[in-house]
Order: sequence, then structure tokens, then C-alpha cells
Amino acid sequence: MPINHVAVVGGTHGNEPTGPYLLRLLAEKGIPASCSTFALDLVLANPKAYKQNVRFIDQDLNRSFLTADLSNHSLQHYEAKRAKEINQLLGPKGNAKTDLILDIHTSTASMGTTVILQSSSPLQMQLAAHVQSAIPGVFIYAISAETYTGGSDQPFLPSVAETGIGLEFGPIPNGILRHDLVNRSYAATLACLEFIEQTNRGSAPLPRQPVEYFEHVKTVPFPLDEEGRIDAIIHESLQDRDYTPLKPGDPIFVHRNGQVVHSTEDEILYPVFINEAAYYPQKAAFSLTRKRSTTL
Amino acid sequence: MPINHVAVVGGTHGNEPTGPYLLRLLAEKGIPASCSTFALDLVLANPKAYKQNVRFIDQDLNRSFLTADLSNHSLQHYEAKRAKEINQLLGPKGNAKTDLILDIHTSTASMGTTVILQSSSPLQMQLAAHVQSAIPGVFIYAISAETYTGGSDQPFLPSVAETGIGLEFGPIPNGILRHDLVNRSYAATLACLEFIEQTNRGSAPLPRQPVEYFEHVKTVPFPLDEEGRIDAIIHESLQDRDYTPLKPGDPIFVHRNGQVVHSTEDEILYPVFINEAAYYPQKAAFSLTRKRSTTL
Repeated sequence: MPINHVAVVGGTHGNEPTGPYLLRLLAEKGIPASCSTFALDLVLANPKAYKQNVRFIDQDLNRSFLTADLSNHSLQHYEAKRAKEINQLLGPKGNAKTDLILDIHTSTASMGTTVILQSSSPLQMQLAAHVQSAIPGVFIYAISAETYTGGSDQPFLPSVAETGIGLEFGPIPNGILRHDLVNRSYAATLACLEFIEQTNRGSAPLPRQPVEYFEHVKTVPFPLDEEGRIDAIIHESLQDRDYTPLKPGDPIFVHRNGQVVHSTEDEILYPVFINEAAYYPQKAAFSLTRKRSTTL
Repeated sequence: MPINHVAVVGGTHGNEPTGPYLLRLLAEKGIPASCSTFALDLVLANPKAYKQNVRFIDQDLNRSFLTADLSNHSLQHYEAKRAKEINQLLGPKGNAKTDLILDIHTSTASMGTTVILQSSSPLQMQLAAHVQSAIPGVFIYAISAETYTGGSDQPFLPSVAETGIGLEFGPIPNGILRHDLVNRSYAATLACLEFIEQTNRGSAPLPRQPVEYFEHVKTVPFPLDEEGRIDAIIHESLQDRDYTPLKPGDPIFVHRNGQVVHSTEDEILYPVFINEAAYYPQKAAFSLTRKRSTTL
């Protein structure tokens, strides 16, 4: 099946300006001349939140794409309406005119360049493996619907297309642009487009095998006090150590009185999204993943 | 004149949680037993903005302390009211019961640990010099009322007391806590309290001489497009180089088409607050300072 329609989406979270800046870069530079087998849409997903430099207005847009919500006309807040518009523009989900969506995000955590796999499309791992071969040091993070929502549906924007990919870049504070992340997001996006072109031409090379990836296991909350406030901070030995092994008993938090909290996991896991600002409202400190590999 | 009343203020900007966390640390650990000559207040300046994790609700609280505004009863928005409450609690400005205010801030820029001098009190440079002697690598940044507002009054919160000091720590994204900045803010605050105690006892040692500091010269805006949008990003050779010399002709911005913008200053100046998220709404890219030294 050829990939005829592709969308690059930025500004799904309004306080991550790297995506919108990348859209302007792509619009002005155009896509590479070698990419002739597919059409490309550039979509600013949440213009109102982007203008106000906030993650969202009423509700996280990147949690607004459950199939039931897209057809629920009683949901009338800004992101619910915007999700329906995007679903009409790029979808409809389940039978979408867009074959592949790349959704550009940034993180305050040291996520490097991460390809986030959210669908069950077989194509997504091939694309991720290609990016990993093309750009040294790229991570692949797989979040299945089962581990995330417990159901088979996904609330994420890229789930509108059969193949939905998140591209995550970090670390960067919210609300600013940096040369390194702009350059990294441009390079990773071009690597994705190159893979799509080669796939359509039947000339995509086999990636380096086996392909290493990180599978979502769980989210770890901050310790809270009696009033529900965050009561400890990320331990210095964990801060900035995304994708490095966390062994049983390793320190993870430190309280104000110096008391250290240790990991109670009984296996080596790999933390991601360590100290991500967007997850403070949910009191989430980091996520844990299991390192896996696959052969394509 | 003894320093009888001191206030440590945090959360003046609601999306900088390091200050509020430091207040909890000071409240729980208490001040050092050696500090017996002064009373210490701990003040969460903008609780509503802190709860919502935003810089401010209606207006920057740290620009709300002009003397005229404090007595203007037609100003009734949240920060105007909060400024009047703080002025009543710690001031009144011009005749304040609080002798010295330490106001804790963080920046997305690589500001290290910076003591910001905002008043004309002779004591402030002595305090800053003491912190610089006690903690290697501390910067002193002097913003006079003249260079900032063009008048003789100051809009900053610390201006409520005769001696007003800002303590700035960076880099850190807004909305998160980090072990290194919590530790640095605690150490710098203790160094300030130690200086106050020694001054009251007449035993403050003379700091290393001469004292090097950076004097505010101007703010440099981002290049804008016809629609007023930020049209270029900080050049990679300037990013994260706060307090390092910027020579005439050095690159400062890069446009999406690769065009580089160079400094048009005719002397070596020292940039600070490079790529500070809070200044994007004003389209300010960084500030320039002149390196100076003084003998106490």
C-alpha cells in the first residue's frame, strides 16, 4: 500500500514552539525534490493555545482523539472542537485520507530525539528503525493502547491516521526555541520523509538489525504530603538520565530532610520523561520502560 | 544600622517553583542557630499564580511595585492587590519595617547563581560580594532604576525594602524542581543570612577585592517578520553563553534561510538572560551588560 498522504503536525501543545517553527521551515524550504510520491500537509494543531503559549486551553488536545469523543457532540470545549476539525481535515479516524501523521513535540526531560510509536501499524517500527539508522542516538519508545488506556483505542492525535508517529525532542524549557532542537527536529522529519519516499518506490533499505526499543511499563508518581503537594524532588542520580538503566534499589527521590526514596521495582527498567513539566499537574515524576528488541 | 528584619520571598513568579520549595526547606530546617540578631519572614508572594503554575494572573507582580501604583486605588487586579498586601506586610516602601528582602527567582537562561542588585543601598554590593566570596562562580548583575525605567523608582518587589536583592538561578524550565537549583538556592540564601549576621555583629570580613559585576546596558529584541512574529532564533554560538564576552560583529541570530545576524555593538559587552522564556511575549532575546569592578 503506497503512502499517498502525509501530515506533519506541530503545536499540538501550544507551549512547545519548536513544532510551529518547523512547520514554517518546511513551508519555506519546501520538501526535498526527491519526495515526489506523496502529498504533504502541514498542520498547526492548536493555534489558540500556541498564541497564548499554554499547553492547552480547556483540555490536552493530545488526549482528545478517542473515537467515542470524536463523535460525541456534547463535547463543545475548544480542544474537543479542534479535535473534530483535525479529524475532518486528516481523518476520519478509522478510514483516514491521511496515511501517516508525524506529530512534533518537545519535552523538558532529556529525551534526546525519540520516535514515539502509538499505533499497531507494522509500518511504524520500520519507519522508526530507519530514523534510528539514519541518525545516531535516536530512541524508539512504544506506547501501546493497552498499556496506556487499558483499552484498544488511543486518545493521541496521530491515532487519526493508520500510522501515527510522535517525534519528541528534549530537553528544552517550554515556550522557547533553540537552534539544536530546531535542527534536530528538521533532520528527523526529513529522515521520515525519506523513508516514506523509499518505501513508496520499493527501495527502502533494511535497517540495522535487531532494532532496540523501549516499551512503556508504568508511570511513577511523586511522593505527596498530606495536602497532596509534591513532597520530594527527583534524586540527582536520576535527573537527566532518561533511557539509562534504573536498577532495583536505586535512589529516585530525595525529601527536604534528606531522606532518600529508592526504586522498589524488582528488575532493571529504563526511565523516560524524567521531570517533565507537563506531568506535574498529575504529580507524575517519570515513566518506566522495558528495553526490548525486534527483528524486522 | 543593624539589619533587624529580613524577608525571603519566593513564588513572585508563579511558574518558578524553586522559591516556594526553598521556603518550605527554610521553614522546616529553621535558620542556622548562629543567626540570632535578626527576625526572618518567609513570604509566598503570588500564591494564586503559583497554584496555577503561571508567571502571573493579570500582571507581572515583579513589575507592580512602583510607588505611584502602590497608592493607586483604581488598580484592582490580582497582582495590584497582592502588591499592596505585600507592601503592607513588609513595607511600606520608603519607610519599611523590613530592612532587607531576598527575592528568589529562576531563569530558563544559563544565569548560574546571580545576585541581582536593584536598589541604591550601599549594603547590597557588600552582600553580593560576600556571596561571591563564599560561593565560587556567583555573578553580580546591577540594574539601576535609571537604566531600567528611566526614572528613579523601581517596579520590582525587593524595592519595598531599603536593601532589595534578587537571587536568580538557572538554567531550569519553568514549572519544575531540580536538585541542583534547590541546593544552590539554599546555599546562596544561607550565605546571605550569614553576611547579615556578621554585619550585625560587626564581624563581616572584607570580601576579595576588587569586586567584579555586570551593569545592565540594554535589552536586545528578536528580529520580527511583517506580522510581528519572532523570525529568527538565537545563534548557536550565543546560546547558553550568558556572561561570556560578545564582541562587535559576533553572530547573535540565525534566520530560517540560514542568514546570520551579527552584533552591531562597537564594544565588548556581556549578554545575560539569553533565551529567557518569560521575555518572549515582549520579543526580547537577551540583555547586554558592561563588565565593571569596584572596591569596597
